[in-house]
Amino acid sequence: MTIPGPYLLYLGDTTDPASIKTSRGLAVFRGDDCVGEYRHDGCPLTVGLPRLTMAEGAAAGARTLVLGIANPGGIMEPALIADARAALEAGMNVASGLHQRLNHVPALVALAGDKGLALFDVRDPPADLPVGTGRPRAGRRLLTVGTDCSVGKMYASLALVAGLRARGARAEFRATGQTGILIAGSGVPVDAVVADFISGAIEQLAPARDDDGWDVIEGQGSLFHPSFAGVSTGLLHGAQPEALVLCHDPSRAAVRGLPERRLPGLAECLAANLQVARLTSPRVRAAGVCLNTSRFAENEALRLCREAEQLLGLPCSDPHRFGVEAIVDDLLCHERSAPAPTASR
Amino acid sequence: MTIPGPYLLYLGDTTDPASIKTSRGLAVFRGDDCVGEYRHDGCPLTVGLPRLTMAEGAAAGARTLVLGIANPGGIMEPALIADARAALEAGMNVASGLHQRLNHVPALVALAGDKGLALFDVRDPPADLPVGTGRPRAGRRLLTVGTDCSVGKMYASLALVAGLRARGARAEFRATGQTGILIAGSGVPVDAVVADFISGAIEQLAPARDDDGWDVIEGQGSLFHPSFAGVSTGLLHGAQPEALVLCHDPSRAAVRGLPERRLPGLAECLAANLQVARLTSPRVRAAGVCLNTSRFAENEALRLCREAEQLLGLPCSDPHRFGVEAIVDDLLCHERSAPAPTASR
Repeated sequence: MTIPGPYLLYLGDTTDPASIKTSRGLAVFRGDDCVGEYRHDGCPLTVGLPRLTMAEGAAAGARTLVLGIANPGGIMEPALIADARAALEAGMNVASGLHQRLNHVPALVALAGDKGLALFDVRDPPADLPVGTGRPRAGRRLLTVGTDCSVGKMYASLALVAGLRARGARAEFRATGQTGILIAGSGVPVDAVVADFISGAIEQLAPARDDDGWDVIEGQGSLFHPSFAGVSTGLLHGAQPEALVLCHDPSRAAVRGLPERRLPGLAECLAANLQVARLTSPRVRAAGVCLNTSRFAENEALRLCREAEQLLGLPCSDPHRFGVEAIVDDLLCHERSAPAPTASR
Repeated sequence: MTIPGPYLLYLGDTTDPASIKTSRGLAVFRGDDCVGEYRHDGCPLTVGLPRLTMAEGAAAGARTLVLGIANPGGIMEPALIADARAALEAGMNVASGLHQRLNHVPALVALAGDKGLALFDVRDPPADLPVGTGRPRAGRRLLTVGTDCSVGKMYASLALVAGLRARGARAEFRATGQTGILIAGSGVPVDAVVADFISGAIEQLAPARDDDGWDVIEGQGSLFHPSFAGVSTGLLHGAQPEALVLCHDPSRAAVRGLPERRLPGLAECLAANLQVARLTSPRVRAAGVCLNTSRFAENEALRLCREAEQLLGLPCSDPHRFGVEAIVDDLLCHERSAPAPTASR
């Protein structure tokens, strides 16, 4: 699946900033491939791109409208279907990361067929996924893990890839969620695969490599989130990571969606992730901590990073604010002192 | 989904005894509802029931042919499809626990429609599963966990239900695999649900109850199996168990399907399961150990049980050979000393 760019980013009539995460991620990380944003008059949000109509987007060169929004239940509402129709009428493909599928709406399937355009459901897992084996495979892999959902694992992963490349290392981003997949242009929507194939999907996503480059795998959920810990467990086993980077939002008091449940402590969370990871990667180690400090003033953000560094004895940073240099240093330092794992380790 | 009995059990031309697990489970636990077995001349196996043709099975009152076999990949092979057609022609419904679906074979769907008969794909998960919450819910729940796949978790669960009922307690078996679902007549195929809904599926399968009865939930996989630990993790969180029973096959040296990987020790395995379970059930405890000693002489089997008892300080038995009385004693003893959990705990 390769989704043709450039993109027109859909905001629709969304009013919740958290719900345009996918459109915002594309604007930030694939900005050069985005010609504008489409929103209704009632939408107070923007990702900072020119506001265009469907016709203007197509005229500006957009080949795909990306429905980069999340709504409760991931439903294809009538207004959303009408907008997808308008995009097809204007000559654009349509891509979606919602749970309900574009390809399950007969009117859209028919219209796309008539127009010779495509509907991309990013949440459709690949067919014929293998069952995981946990067998040692060659290559350097890093997995981002978190104290919760939506604490910045994708952002940290992309920042680490950029940081490694800036230092001359090979590094690939391996996407596991819809936003990451749209940014990378490929990946596996791990929360949508059948439960028996979670670790196998990740083994296929990040196969053996022997070029001394890094696969930076986007984590999902949290071992401490009672809704999604099964996904996080299979991801840890399939990733077979050499290194973990722990991601956290210090402003968050409770687990996302479950206000009665407190977040785990950083040390407890890291220890549990290392323990689970050891099943398939006995020598796994922690390489750093990434904090999302966007809700704090800069001096407070720096203090939070120092505090985590002292607590865990690991480099800690906010990737967006202060970069990931110290964590990349740690990765490249270990790279010099230890050869990349081979299948025969 | 209620599958009409009595059943005719299908063995086909299977030669591997492990592959007729589902037919054998039905013969053992629902023997009164099975009129016979259907097998080809080349099949050396039996579940101890009369060998019948399709026509004889239907004449003996069978309302459903159960394809109670497993084959590599769970494929609907042409010979299997031909036999399913013959069953429909003879006037029986067809039920299957294979990965590939009866309802995806157009010829079978058409014939069943013509005959007014039904095709049951036991591996189809229910639509509209909820996401798990981990919120405390009332009721007594026991989950069987294991050192590996296929170590007797279903057998132990069914024996514990029978043992509790024999002592006058209320107890229900909550099935999570295809054999268990066919035995119970309902359940959720947890390895076939979409990864995001593992714990939610189990919360729905074993909802709150306030009658002081037990839900005995069939475990799947193992936290130490790199293919399936994600399923086992979500099952632990969704089950929110008051008690765990650890299941093990002492004859097994390596993880099923992965000969290079050693099984965990009993103490290590139990500790890991208790740790994961505590996320949603802080007061979870171990209630006993069930060994499958079918490959050992009786005195050796007794020695293995004593050894596990001393190692873990828990009652241990082979449910089929020596019953589950000691574990049921433990459950009922705790039941007297501690009230059933309520949602407000």
